[in-house]
Amino acid sequence: MGNDKVLLDHGSGGKISHAMISNMILPAFNNPVLNRLDDGAVLEMNGGRVAFSTDSYVVDPIFFPGGNIGDLAINGTVNDVAMCGAIPEYVSVGLILEEGFSSDDLSIILQSMARAAQKAGVQVVTGDTKVVPRGKADKIFINTSGFGIIPPGIHLSGSSASPGDRVIISGTVADHGITVLTAREGLGIDSEIETDSAPLNHMVKEILKAAPGVHVLRDPTRGGVGTTLNEIAAQSGVGIRIKEQYIPLKGAVLGMCELLGFDPLYIANEGKLLAVVAPEDTDAALRAIQNSPFGRDAAVIGEVTAEDPGKVFLETVIGGARIVDMLAGDQLPRIC
Amino acid sequence: MGNDKVLLDHGSGGKISHAMISNMILPAFNNPVLNRLDDGAVLEMNGGRVAFSTDSYVVDPIFFPGGNIGDLAINGTVNDVAMCGAIPEYVSVGLILEEGFSSDDLSIILQSMARAAQKAGVQVVTGDTKVVPRGKADKIFINTSGFGIIPPGIHLSGSSASPGDRVIISGTVADHGITVLTAREGLGIDSEIETDSAPLNHMVKEILKAAPGVHVLRDPTRGGVGTTLNEIAAQSGVGIRIKEQYIPLKGAVLGMCELLGFDPLYIANEGKLLAVVAPEDTDAALRAIQNSPFGRDAAVIGEVTAEDPGKVFLETVIGGARIVDMLAGDQLPRIC
Repeated sequence: MGNDKVLLDHGSGGKISHAMISNMILPAFNNPVLNRLDDGAVLEMNGGRVAFSTDSYVVDPIFFPGGNIGDLAINGTVNDVAMCGAIPEYVSVGLILEEGFSSDDLSIILQSMARAAQKAGVQVVTGDTKVVPRGKADKIFINTSGFGIIPPGIHLSGSSASPGDRVIISGTVADHGITVLTAREGLGIDSEIETDSAPLNHMVKEILKAAPGVHVLRDPTRGGVGTTLNEIAAQSGVGIRIKEQYIPLKGAVLGMCELLGFDPLYIANEGKLLAVVAPEDTDAALRAIQNSPFGRDAAVIGEVTAEDPGKVFLETVIGGARIVDMLAGDQLPRIC
Repeated sequence: MGNDKVLLDHGSGGKISHAMISNMILPAFNNPVLNRLDDGAVLEMNGGRVAFSTDSYVVDPIFFPGGNIGDLAINGTVNDVAMCGAIPEYVSVGLILEEGFSSDDLSIILQSMARAAQKAGVQVVTGDTKVVPRGKADKIFINTSGFGIIPPGIHLSGSSASPGDRVIISGTVADHGITVLTAREGLGIDSEIETDSAPLNHMVKEILKAAPGVHVLRDPTRGGVGTTLNEIAAQSGVGIRIKEQYIPLKGAVLGMCELLGFDPLYIANEGKLLAVVAPEDTDAALRAIQNSPFGRDAAVIGEVTAEDPGKVFLETVIGGARIVDMLAGDQLPRIC
């Protein structure tokens, strides 16, 4: 790690996270499934394929406009499983509670999780609760793990982007990260800003039905669209060019980003997906996304190139192009 | 919960834990799979059955004689999946790290997890790492979730114990809990005392092969043998009578229990199982367990009765019988 202590940056989802994963975690558990580094693992099981994913949620604050740590934890794992092309079915819930945490808040969070599970059509089938003494955790941390079957014929991976493919974003970017940040810092919540946390599995099902030429699905959570596109470019050995003017962004979110000096391309989303689609299927995929309740603002934002493999370029509104590098450290800790 | 704050007791695995599960968690996620309350969920998938389980590990200290939080986390989930009669295959790892945690310690823990996974014959296929600011978590918390296929014909459940069945414990009790306690409190580590943390899946495979009449397998972790037997008695609507003189217990562990005033029946084990077996298969099951490297001290400790449904009795060495109630609160917090 080039450092003898764990830093907040190691949890950022950016370059420093990737370095820790590459240097410490992959060598320890070395196996081809883990090494693929997709949002979930794709496993052979009982003659079919299953996608399996896990995420721990440590968001601060635990309640924020439009959601809380509970629905976030359900939607996040549902989405990671869905991004593998699977139909999420079963979810586990592991709670770590701080002694003294409010039972009422716990109850609200559990109810939110249950509602989120119902909306996504998944069942919470197993769980675990640990309590640590006061001051040894921050209120509540939630792990969710989930899995579901991948229908025959579906083969999605971050390594499947091809030159000529189009890049679609399913809606406005940076909503979740800016919502949590403003809630945490007490910056005065703009009523227009709320988390985009949502289950995307129903949308994914429609995309797969409408557009067999979809090659990659990925939800740009920690690290945002910029980091996720860099991951896809690296995994597929392609370049990606996106156009600033096409990237959907709410005015209020843009305003907060400008005020605070954040680049919305690096801010976490929790209800958005990036789809990399063969050109002939792009219109069908876009329509399928726009017909979903969580995809009305979807747009084609760029395309995949053979040039500049591993690199992402942004063509700015004022002309010219700049490299969109992977986020180095942590722009916003504890965003999910 | 009868209290507006989460207490350490809510994580004990005992009565107060059960009350929270019954009053808050089951109603929220109400579904028949979760409601069965076995060590893992049993799910239909691709025409077969899969067992799925999750656990978060918050043990303090993270290093203790014979193991650390890493191998504990792998073995624990491997065992929960195995107790469903499944062959554990895939495990996820979710890390929550405190900013400033030693990278060297993290590396040691990851290596231990990798070795434990190899010994158990499971693959770590997906993971997640979060970092929280200093003081917002205690060094490292680990969630592991895992699953595996249940072979056709295997039907184990805590609700399947029948009057006349024998109860087997696979070895000495209370080793893990007493090890962690003495390590935490700096009570001077007796070299004979170390954690029993071990993967039990290979032992389970041999039991199932040798003894088709095994009805229940359960690993008595948090809450110990006493709490686990109470769970089985309640789930199956039977009584259970065990004999104190048959319960294997290391002298050094007994000594620490007596010194500190703990009842070894309520102390956590991390490499032991309880098997409830039809009388005609008891010898075969016992031999299968004793042939396993982790089962040499196995013994038949009691039997299942039609009388006193839901109750567990201990026949003491000095004669007479006392009720072994479910542990109320938390005898030893942060033991796993």
